[in-house]
Amino acid sequence: MSIKTAEVVTIGDEILIGQITDTNTQFIATELNKLGVKVLRKQTIGDSKAAIVNMLKDSLANADLVITTGGLGPTKDDITKHTINEFFGSELVLHQPTLDTVTAFFAKRGKEVSEANRLQAMVPQCCEVILNEHGTAPCMWFEHNGKFLVCMPGVPFEMKNLMTGGVQSKIKQHLDIQEIYHKTILTVGVGESVLAEMISDWEDSLPEYIKLAYLPSFGSVKLRLSAYGSNYEYLKYETDALFVAIAPVIEKYIISETTEKLEVALGDLLNAHHLSLATAESCTGGALSAAIVSVAGSSQYFKGSVVAYQNEIKKNILGVHEDTLLRFGAVSEQCVIEMAAGAVKVLQSDLAVAISGIAGPTGGSEEKPVGTIWMACSDGQHTLTKKIVGINIREVNISYATTQSMYLVFEFVKMYAFKEC
Amino acid sequence: MSIKTAEVVTIGDEILIGQITDTNTQFIATELNKLGVKVLRKQTIGDSKAAIVNMLKDSLANADLVITTGGLGPTKDDITKHTINEFFGSELVLHQPTLDTVTAFFAKRGKEVSEANRLQAMVPQCCEVILNEHGTAPCMWFEHNGKFLVCMPGVPFEMKNLMTGGVQSKIKQHLDIQEIYHKTILTVGVGESVLAEMISDWEDSLPEYIKLAYLPSFGSVKLRLSAYGSNYEYLKYETDALFVAIAPVIEKYIISETTEKLEVALGDLLNAHHLSLATAESCTGGALSAAIVSVAGSSQYFKGSVVAYQNEIKKNILGVHEDTLLRFGAVSEQCVIEMAAGAVKVLQSDLAVAISGIAGPTGGSEEKPVGTIWMACSDGQHTLTKKIVGINIREVNISYATTQSMYLVFEFVKMYAFKEC
Repeated sequence: MSIKTAEVVTIGDEILIGQITDTNTQFIATELNKLGVKVLRKQTIGDSKAAIVNMLKDSLANADLVITTGGLGPTKDDITKHTINEFFGSELVLHQPTLDTVTAFFAKRGKEVSEANRLQAMVPQCCEVILNEHGTAPCMWFEHNGKFLVCMPGVPFEMKNLMTGGVQSKIKQHLDIQEIYHKTILTVGVGESVLAEMISDWEDSLPEYIKLAYLPSFGSVKLRLSAYGSNYEYLKYETDALFVAIAPVIEKYIISETTEKLEVALGDLLNAHHLSLATAESCTGGALSAAIVSVAGSSQYFKGSVVAYQNEIKKNILGVHEDTLLRFGAVSEQCVIEMAAGAVKVLQSDLAVAISGIAGPTGGSEEKPVGTIWMACSDGQHTLTKKIVGINIREVNISYATTQSMYLVFEFVKMYAFKEC
Repeated sequence: MSIKTAEVVTIGDEILIGQITDTNTQFIATELNKLGVKVLRKQTIGDSKAAIVNMLKDSLANADLVITTGGLGPTKDDITKHTINEFFGSELVLHQPTLDTVTAFFAKRGKEVSEANRLQAMVPQCCEVILNEHGTAPCMWFEHNGKFLVCMPGVPFEMKNLMTGGVQSKIKQHLDIQEIYHKTILTVGVGESVLAEMISDWEDSLPEYIKLAYLPSFGSVKLRLSAYGSNYEYLKYETDALFVAIAPVIEKYIISETTEKLEVALGDLLNAHHLSLATAESCTGGALSAAIVSVAGSSQYFKGSVVAYQNEIKKNILGVHEDTLLRFGAVSEQCVIEMAAGAVKVLQSDLAVAISGIAGPTGGSEEKPVGTIWMACSDGQHTLTKKIVGINIREVNISYATTQSMYLVFEFVKMYAFKEC
């Protein structure tokens, strides 16, 4: 049978009580999507036999492929393997290649294989093992009544290597020819509902096989068209043409038509104009710099950052005037102007962005409540400033400032009409 | 009927195709847990009528409380409200206080209410509205055959305010007296399986009502005991006593018994020793600094950071010798030693941590493969260095280096026996 639909399941009490963020299912869903497999549902269930059995029955009935992660660790809270073994009426046997890999894995680190790790090399006889080269838990592939079940370990980089390697290869053997094409536009400066009204007629005229989604976050909205059909080139042609038709209507809000990630779009912008960038950060504490560096190849355009969390660093390294801090305070337009100018100088960049604000939860005042954040972009001659007011949650304010300061660079480049090279 | 169990559901195609990370369910699960409500399952389903109806039937049969987020936006891909309205056989009516809030919300920003936003103020007659003060979508509370359904908007900060405000108050009205107590220990330097063998006898002797979980990540393992019962003080007393019994066995691996977050534990360590910290980062690009600053109150002990993404910054600001870069390269023990010493000086801190490595995916060599990362901790006199070797995935190497560099500070403080003040 061919694989058209999937369910993705995470197994682990630690996720149900909110102890860790599950990023595995997002990765798996993205990979399945690229293969044209439609994800019908994602689930997280606990380390309980009843929950696992219920999930197996329900999910295998609902979708062609069920992918689980987690619950394969060496410790006693992990019962997935035994439950699945029982569910299929199989028995556990030693998988020698897994034991060899595990033994080599520990030998390389000068350690012996523990009894718990040895037990991890036992697998249900009815499964096919996909070798996990980065950890001790084997990946298992089951076929049952024309349906497929894959069980992967929950450690993210082990899972990622399996998902883009052996698991992907196995899935590809069972795929239909159905194709899928996504096209996303990144917009900024317009709300979801206003955008929806602007393109309402166009949206109503979309053909049945093309679906539009709005994905809003922190002042930006992504518009995504997804086309489903049998001919990839046709889907791509039709979808791209639909975007060409609507682009002029929303042109001034479009940041990128080629990437969905703001930090990648920023890199593209800087590369296109042959500009280098630096940052001077106070309340974001390096979050902007880290976002820029998360992009591979950012050394092409990124110089570095001064995280001036204390005023003495703002003065000593960035050259902010003592007088500015006394008269206006660290969270002021004047301070970020001097921080940005100082960063251009000391980090020897074409442009610099500076951020100073009150992330919270404490430190606010009547005049400058928590969430008050000033930012400036400078090339040493011109400066563009912006003030935003966030909320009372530290992490939200840091994210918000990080995102908004990247937009400020787009505005600065547009305003001062740097020529595209 | 009282609320003992819950299911948490996210509605949205954008999550199923992996476009965004769902952090809402983690937050909700944590909050429910604090209230002693056991989360049985988390799910993400698509913006489809059939999927929503199936979920409502299944989840309301399984748990006492079902909490949904998402699918309440003003755009056409959001059909949650209409489906729920039909499911309960109700009809949509205008909720005037919501329309008033929305009108005020837009007026404050100098905008008019759009038709799409006006429609958002329509709610099923059978629900009770919990006012959403931070957005345009109302929060709806339903009671049906002794079960409860809450529908919240998916925008994280709107959801968080509702969840810790009006929704929590409503849930509390329907709670049993059942109590829950969690205690977590953060360990480092020991693998999950070795740890499991060390405490095996103790684990086997745990009473029925106390459950142990192992939560591993990047070289650390959290051990969490969860106790369920009717008397909170008794549960706390029993659980804490169990930890006192096992602590000596694993003492040298324990980083913290009071927090689960490494960056918080680091802050506690620095405060306890009255030490200030600074960072000098290359390949992590500010991720370490951002992690430290993510903790409220970090200005007590954190000075700032120099993100020296280019060699000229390592030289000009941190004082790394030209000769060092030429002879050993930027990714070398000698370079991080000089970066750390330079950071202590220029950022005027008691301690500094420096990191330089090859995050990847390119830039590696035979001698220094991608993932090679050097780090140093210095107080200007003594220095402790460490080399780690990650994998071929940029984000993993950055996270790994961030975590390991924090451990290095713990080791440094222990090794040079700074007196606890």
